[in-house]
Amino acid sequence: MNHIISVMVENKSGVLAKIAALFSRRGFNIESLAVGTTDDEKVSRITIVVNSDESSIEQITKQLHKLINVIKIQKLLPEHSVQRELVLIKVNTENKSRAEILEIGNIFRANVVDVTKGTIMLELTGNSSKISAFEELLKPYGILEFVRTGMIACSRGKKY
Amino acid sequence: MNHIISVMVENKSGVLAKIAALFSRRGFNIESLAVGTTDDEKVSRITIVVNSDESSIEQITKQLHKLINVIKIQKLLPEHSVQRELVLIKVNTENKSRAEILEIGNIFRANVVDVTKGTIMLELTGNSSKISAFEELLKPYGILEFVRTGMIACSRGKKY
Repeated sequence: MNHIISVMVENKSGVLAKIAALFSRRGFNIESLAVGTTDDEKVSRITIVVNSDESSIEQITKQLHKLINVIKIQKLLPEHSVQRELVLIKVNTENKSRAEILEIGNIFRANVVDVTKGTIMLELTGNSSKISAFEELLKPYGILEFVRTGMIACSRGKKY
Repeated sequence: MNHIISVMVENKSGVLAKIAALFSRRGFNIESLAVGTTDDEKVSRITIVVNSDESSIEQITKQLHKLINVIKIQKLLPEHSVQRELVLIKVNTENKSRAEILEIGNIFRANVVDVTKGTIMLELTGNSSKISAFEELLKPYGILEFVRTGMIACSRGKKY
């Protein structure tokens, strides 16, 4: 089962390396990871998605708490949070397929961010399954580049 | 100066830890990092933004090439690529401020992704400066949670 862990850390060199090493040593398979600063520039927030059982998650959470630069750890439940990721997809339009690709983009409410002779680049946000569905539809045209951020998640309502 | 490095790696446990350790050991300050799978599920793409001089970037690129799970490294120039990040911001609306926040959201073309009694959550994509400007405008209302993905970047046109 996929678990979403949000870790607030001091924005210092080496913190990410320590956390990544901790997950790696314990054999965790990180499905996705996103790091960004928060509204406090001294604090970064790392969102990690791991596929694991409940007891292993408990273990790793305890280990994370021991790291000196970790400020706060939060487990986010899918049903009580909003999950989003962002993708940039550059697609081949050499075969006069631009109109078709734009039509698919419109249905998914993707934004066109660049067009050149022979290529089109689209930006899409959504949850993992929406992004996978979009990717599948564009594959036949020829995906030239596909860049995806890790997933970020934010709890709903006042509790956080 | 900020440099954008895109590293294609085998999607295996421990690869991210190795790369993060490499940057940390050499004292690099990672401004932003994003990891996501690509259209080939065996390959992940890590986008790293570092503030450093040209010669240090050359050095770290050479070191990265030596890592066994690294497939390809690309330096992306800001003027020849599209840069995007995604942010989720949960803002306090207890002081009847929802209409004002929605107005700011509309100007930035942000999407409302959740509303509860007392809170509103907005989703925004853009480059770093757009996101910072948005954050500044929302600060006075009380930011409850602020989650940002690292930056992703994709080269324009056919060359990649």
